[in-house]
Amino acid sequence: MKLLRVDMHQLQTRWEPVPAAYERLGGRALIAQLLLEEVPPTCDALGPYNKLIFAPGLLGGVNVTTCGRLSVGGKSPLTRGAKEANAGGTAGDMLGKLDIKAVVVEGQAAKGNWYILHIHDESTELVPAGDVRGLGTYASSDRLQEKYGAESTVISIGQGGEWMMGGAGICVTGEGGQRSNHAARGGLGALMGSKGLKAVVIDKPEGKTASLANAELLRTAARAFAQKLINDPKLGKSGTQHLYGTASIVAVVNEMGAFPTRNFREGSFEGAEKLRGEHLREVTLGRGGEVGTRCMPGCVIACRNVYVDESKTPIVGTLQYETIALMGSNLGLGNLDEIAQLNRMCNDFGLDTIETGAALGVAIEAGLAKFGDFESVRALLAQVGEGTVLGRLIGNGAAATGRVLGVRRVPAALGQAMPGYDPRSLKGNGVTYATSPQGADHTAGNAFGARKEVNPLVVPGQKELSLRLQIIAAMLDSTGLCLFARPPIIAEPQLMVDMINGRFGWGWTVDDYNRFNRQVLRTELEFNRRAGLTSADYRIPEYMHAEALPPHNVTFDVPDSDLDAVFEKL
Amino acid sequence: MKLLRVDMHQLQTRWEPVPAAYERLGGRALIAQLLLEEVPPTCDALGPYNKLIFAPGLLGGVNVTTCGRLSVGGKSPLTRGAKEANAGGTAGDMLGKLDIKAVVVEGQAAKGNWYILHIHDESTELVPAGDVRGLGTYASSDRLQEKYGAESTVISIGQGGEWMMGGAGICVTGEGGQRSNHAARGGLGALMGSKGLKAVVIDKPEGKTASLANAELLRTAARAFAQKLINDPKLGKSGTQHLYGTASIVAVVNEMGAFPTRNFREGSFEGAEKLRGEHLREVTLGRGGEVGTRCMPGCVIACRNVYVDESKTPIVGTLQYETIALMGSNLGLGNLDEIAQLNRMCNDFGLDTIETGAALGVAIEAGLAKFGDFESVRALLAQVGEGTVLGRLIGNGAAATGRVLGVRRVPAALGQAMPGYDPRSLKGNGVTYATSPQGADHTAGNAFGARKEVNPLVVPGQKELSLRLQIIAAMLDSTGLCLFARPPIIAEPQLMVDMINGRFGWGWTVDDYNRFNRQVLRTELEFNRRAGLTSADYRIPEYMHAEALPPHNVTFDVPDSDLDAVFEKL
Repeated sequence: MKLLRVDMHQLQTRWEPVPAAYERLGGRALIAQLLLEEVPPTCDALGPYNKLIFAPGLLGGVNVTTCGRLSVGGKSPLTRGAKEANAGGTAGDMLGKLDIKAVVVEGQAAKGNWYILHIHDESTELVPAGDVRGLGTYASSDRLQEKYGAESTVISIGQGGEWMMGGAGICVTGEGGQRSNHAARGGLGALMGSKGLKAVVIDKPEGKTASLANAELLRTAARAFAQKLINDPKLGKSGTQHLYGTASIVAVVNEMGAFPTRNFREGSFEGAEKLRGEHLREVTLGRGGEVGTRCMPGCVIACRNVYVDESKTPIVGTLQYETIALMGSNLGLGNLDEIAQLNRMCNDFGLDTIETGAALGVAIEAGLAKFGDFESVRALLAQVGEGTVLGRLIGNGAAATGRVLGVRRVPAALGQAMPGYDPRSLKGNGVTYATSPQGADHTAGNAFGARKEVNPLVVPGQKELSLRLQIIAAMLDSTGLCLFARPPIIAEPQLMVDMINGRFGWGWTVDDYNRFNRQVLRTELEFNRRAGLTSADYRIPEYMHAEALPPHNVTFDVPDSDLDAVFEKL
Repeated sequence: MKLLRVDMHQLQTRWEPVPAAYERLGGRALIAQLLLEEVPPTCDALGPYNKLIFAPGLLGGVNVTTCGRLSVGGKSPLTRGAKEANAGGTAGDMLGKLDIKAVVVEGQAAKGNWYILHIHDESTELVPAGDVRGLGTYASSDRLQEKYGAESTVISIGQGGEWMMGGAGICVTGEGGQRSNHAARGGLGALMGSKGLKAVVIDKPEGKTASLANAELLRTAARAFAQKLINDPKLGKSGTQHLYGTASIVAVVNEMGAFPTRNFREGSFEGAEKLRGEHLREVTLGRGGEVGTRCMPGCVIACRNVYVDESKTPIVGTLQYETIALMGSNLGLGNLDEIAQLNRMCNDFGLDTIETGAALGVAIEAGLAKFGDFESVRALLAQVGEGTVLGRLIGNGAAATGRVLGVRRVPAALGQAMPGYDPRSLKGNGVTYATSPQGADHTAGNAFGARKEVNPLVVPGQKELSLRLQIIAAMLDSTGLCLFARPPIIAEPQLMVDMINGRFGWGWTVDDYNRFNRQVLRTELEFNRRAGLTSADYRIPEYMHAEALPPHNVTFDVPDSDLDAVFEKL
């Protein structure tokens, strides 16, 4: 494999053999190590010393289902620590097939100059962005695929990233004209913007396949893995995740009292019924939209939808749980059409719907719009596209919005907005938000799936649960695996070990694999420590310790000593 | 002496004997210790657990010249650490005469409810702010003195504090209708606003004098101290500071290449001639304004002015160096009338001119106004009074403005804007900005006065100089002494020891005094450590290490190892 270095200051690209330190790493693991080795931990996240890294997971590009996620990383302008966010689409698969371990973007272009990085097999070039600059992600993707071919993959930022907004993510196209896979969290779009890089285009590598050390071993394990997914009652063709997508959990989270409602003031929403996955499916199919579509080629779960309006025009593909929570109940909105419109605006601006939904909730708290009043919320979000100062503020996320507007009720940890699970009534998630090197994040160690195992309302068991889930999350994010595909690997780690050995021939044991997963967290924690982050930065906001959350009237009461102990057994 | 506790949640006040831990402390020293003992270091600075402390220095209320400054403190919303800012005016003297060690404001009033704390000798009350709410500091002071008497002292916040802006300070009235003494730095006005406290009114304590342990000892030392000030060639009647005020240093700082110009892009300003103290004096006297006035009763230095317009109407009293630098050259403005207008607006809004000047420079950098174009700058600052989101952003200071507008060139350290000395060409100040528990601050250890002793352009000697100056600053801020009055005390510490012993009878030696001064810094550093601040938070911004500052073309090149070593000998 090889590394592509992109120097935005000199406007040069360079292939490099993979340095030994990165050889057995991929995705999030590679990002963490590269940050530790190459990025000054206290550097300005939007300055020239930070690096933007695109890395497929270890299994990117090989014929394994749901393993094609693209990891994007760097030092986060929001958390000020190590950040990885990943997205579906075709980029992870393409880079893997090209045997590219990572694309590392360094330095900064001269202010006001914007470029497109074009990768065609071994040939690479940086070309001026021209009139793609200033466009949203939909138009950017369209324009670039018109130029480079409909089968090319486009990784782009919208206005959010161009203006270096802390809530900006990075958009990745998928097969069949998909436009909305987002490596959304942590402001990595702002990092891409700070480099002067508007987009990366990867031409489809015709006839290329990733090299395999033991094709037979890989094939056998991959087949067993796919079969287990298909046979899983939740994931297979009649499973809730295939039928209803991520929105399948709306009803349960709402019943648990953990469904963020009106800026995390309440834990259940009176309008939740119309936000349920079942309703989403019904509306979508009734209008001629699609359900059960894929974000990555060959995925056997297919949890995605294409949400359309009444005239069958696609609004977004896909409408997901986190967006429904943060831009729906969190804003007092109970109408999927309205949520889908806000979602589309965020997608186009290239903004994280979690961060932006939380920021809108905070802005409403400050009186700038009204809970439940779609038009006032839409007008507020529209400011982002209009480039007003208010728009820039909202686009910078919940913490900045709260600070400037003098709002104390900001649902964030480590500077990053909380996803759709109130930590007071899903305490395992609270522990993850308050300790993960990634900050408050729905994929860093989500305890929702373990709610029957550890009572989400009590303190005992949460710290152990969070650690276990954080280690699994690190594995998923480093192999390119989707969160939904984890059950067979948790049940039988040897499957993953075989797939990795089949690809690389490293002769790993399950012990090696466990060590690898834990090391990801250790490396990130060390980077964050060197970046000057302390427990004071990580914690759950003060008001959540004092304000009881209806309907269970619970506060976040996991003691600091438990939080401090999470990584003792790492 | 006694302590006044003000509970803004219960709306109760309570006198309390001074706890033993605070007995031998005053001003900044008391604030530091009280924070360490009573305020959870990781608390939300604008939440209910922070405390706002008003404390005269040890010599407040006694008949010692220039010792009546009022210290205000709490955990800063800007630096997130221990903060003390002090102001002249009559408050320090009044509280001292009332034998009040400190007024400690705790808890928070119900949202939207605003109160005035009225202190009349031993009687205290919290009364609704009524229509004083929403007023600037000029009108607030007028209104409250109309009600409580022209001789009462008013401590108030303006719109900045009410809206909890990070750049908000606290205004203190002085004798003869003075309206603009400001405990400006660190966002303490926002802290006052978060409590729901619009103002404190202290009626003049008729016939009260501070109790003295040894009146003769105090009188002798105080007389010697005053005489030394009068005899000092710089401070006496023919001294530059009396004649030209703080603006006397404009020419020298400009020649040194440390005069912040156009958002710290340059170190000398082509229009500096018209900003000099000599010019300020000439214009002021020519128009019938005043120079050589006092901020505190009985001050023998009298460095203040009343700057008037051509029709002799007072604009501000006093126009000072830091404002001239940050709102003048830093914004490309070379006209004192224009600077005075911006100054008056800040005073009225209750905003720190340093923080706000720096924020305006950053906003100009983002294209929201033009360097040197007064009208565009005035319009930008006017937004604060109009309550727009842009106004709230500017009012929140340089770091927030930079973050939201995507500007990397933000002259701040520990979240607080730098005063009027570029750290690249006055490296001793850079060391102070980068290490002081108070963040970038002009009174925390200012190396300007030592420029002939340690070459400001070279690295050697700066860390020792900064430590020495930081210790002296801690002494000044804890005794109520003005920065200008330090030379006699530095030359002869026994003078201060005698004055303190005369007041309290503690039998201090010079060693005790030295220990006391150092302990202030130790306590603050410990609070900041517990608040989670690390060297990564303290440092000089990255761009100042890379961008050479004209005319000397120097970067900030003091190595981190020197910065880390500053407090080794504390």
